[in-house]
Amino acid sequence: MKKLRVLVVGLGNVGRGVLLSLSNNDDMELAGVVSRTPERVKKELPGVAVVKADDIAGIKALNADVAILCGGSKNDLPLQGPQFASIINTVDSFDHHDRIPEYFAAMDTAAKASGKVSVISTGWDPGVFSLERVLANAFIPGAVAKGFYGLGEKGGLSMGHSDALRTIPGVKDARQYTHAVPEAIEAVRAGKAVNFKAGDLHTRECFVVLEDGADAASIEEQIKSMPGYFAPYKTTVNFVTEEELKSRCAGFPHDGCVIASGVTGAGNGAVVEYHCRWGSNPEATANILVAHARAVGRLASEGRSGAFTILDIPASYFSRHSREDLLKKFM
Amino acid sequence: MKKLRVLVVGLGNVGRGVLLSLSNNDDMELAGVVSRTPERVKKELPGVAVVKADDIAGIKALNADVAILCGGSKNDLPLQGPQFASIINTVDSFDHHDRIPEYFAAMDTAAKASGKVSVISTGWDPGVFSLERVLANAFIPGAVAKGFYGLGEKGGLSMGHSDALRTIPGVKDARQYTHAVPEAIEAVRAGKAVNFKAGDLHTRECFVVLEDGADAASIEEQIKSMPGYFAPYKTTVNFVTEEELKSRCAGFPHDGCVIASGVTGAGNGAVVEYHCRWGSNPEATANILVAHARAVGRLASEGRSGAFTILDIPASYFSRHSREDLLKKFM
Repeated sequence: MKKLRVLVVGLGNVGRGVLLSLSNNDDMELAGVVSRTPERVKKELPGVAVVKADDIAGIKALNADVAILCGGSKNDLPLQGPQFASIINTVDSFDHHDRIPEYFAAMDTAAKASGKVSVISTGWDPGVFSLERVLANAFIPGAVAKGFYGLGEKGGLSMGHSDALRTIPGVKDARQYTHAVPEAIEAVRAGKAVNFKAGDLHTRECFVVLEDGADAASIEEQIKSMPGYFAPYKTTVNFVTEEELKSRCAGFPHDGCVIASGVTGAGNGAVVEYHCRWGSNPEATANILVAHARAVGRLASEGRSGAFTILDIPASYFSRHSREDLLKKFM
Repeated sequence: MKKLRVLVVGLGNVGRGVLLSLSNNDDMELAGVVSRTPERVKKELPGVAVVKADDIAGIKALNADVAILCGGSKNDLPLQGPQFASIINTVDSFDHHDRIPEYFAAMDTAAKASGKVSVISTGWDPGVFSLERVLANAFIPGAVAKGFYGLGEKGGLSMGHSDALRTIPGVKDARQYTHAVPEAIEAVRAGKAVNFKAGDLHTRECFVVLEDGADAASIEEQIKSMPGYFAPYKTTVNFVTEEELKSRCAGFPHDGCVIASGVTGAGNGAVVEYHCRWGSNPEATANILVAHARAVGRLASEGRSGAFTILDIPASYFSRHSREDLLKKFM
């Protein structure tokens, strides 16, 4: 059977995770990498076709079946998404929850015009957690699902919040770990109708390396008052050396869960929980993107076009296994 | 919008759960109940249309959109499934895992011939757990998902094993609780490649009321040596009075989880777990069947026909919510 040819757009942590993931999915192969800095990528990946991001003819010549867009949601995807959707099938992990309807509409328009398939906003949240929220609500009508992040002792590394810390003048490097509030988890599990604010569900722990001569007290104050990112949360700031940061904050671990609690017919309790724990958050996202690339191939082969989310795709489309195997071994 | 008219076939615990569930899903309504004993059901449900199981004309006259088949997998569904699939869209919870491929083929043939949609083998296992097994394996290639049942202190009530106990002469009444083995859960979570046998994953606890004069020792021996049901497991048998059975064994609680453990790209650990805890097992199954009835309506409106499983259906089809709401509130 012909392998699905996958184009990786953007070689950051997620893009590198996609390369690794492709080698664990023997029905797919790498068609090439699209980068803003092709010379850098060619050195890192000898033997791989590398094309500049604005070289449309070069991208088309790679003859890929699907492009996995690994750019960021803030600056890359809003422009890049519709551009790619107008020339190739795409998968992306656009994760600004509030702006998903707007992004869906833009991608749907572009993909319908080109006759391509675009799966948007997948990964573990949005993505698998979105799916679990919908299933929980469908199977337990009235249940409201809550998501929690950073369940383990060390918490979960938030890339977005780490980036936010690094924008503060005087901060040389930083990491942010999110911690779920155990009492909030227990309240949701018990079905208590608490009207949670964001700060009730999570706390934030920062590890910050200062530039020489930076004012620690002022930086701590700037962090704790940063709107959206830290102001709504109980936030602790730890100033550490570069060496301490390196040893304490290695890797990209993250974990989380979705919990929904409600009742069935005669008032009997019903609780469902989905948990995931990842040694590498970007590799987890990459694995999920790659499984969605398989689904894109299937949708495209059916002549479908337009934007899709994980909610629009049957689970079997993500799987390497045949219908016969699924019925026999997975049902 | 026109409500989906649902026919309930068989008024046991699951059928009663479906009636309750329909009242919590305002896009559906009860079309009627099909029963082998319509007079009994008419007394229990005054005002509800009740039709005898072999009255095809009567069933058709109820003008239902979908029939939820609540019969058992051993004696009812293998015959009843294809019969109903040849006249109406159906949903069922056929749960003999080994025989699902064969049942799927029979239902697919019947439903394709009649142009109807038949969703088979849904509930929480097979059903939601099947879905979670497929997703875990797709997102963590190579990960093998294991299911566990009876996680809480009291364990989970197994109807099938309780029925098996009651077939033994001298047993007046009985309940069987399944317990997951905590060490096995930890081994799966840790990704240990243990070659588990059934008896390594679960133990079985029986509560048995004897008939007057029955021989306890002989019955205990018969239980513990029953092939398939008890012989492969560490089984304990408690003889109790009818009163003790009533107070210890009220209701139909059950719970379980699917755990899959593996690695992502560079060998980083990855674990996903789906847990559910139900105060009423038959009500849980009923709720899931009802959400699938909604999906059947959607598939039928698209002109689809044949047999489907939960693996073939997008999550959005189970949901009461519009695409706009799903994008805005659930993604």
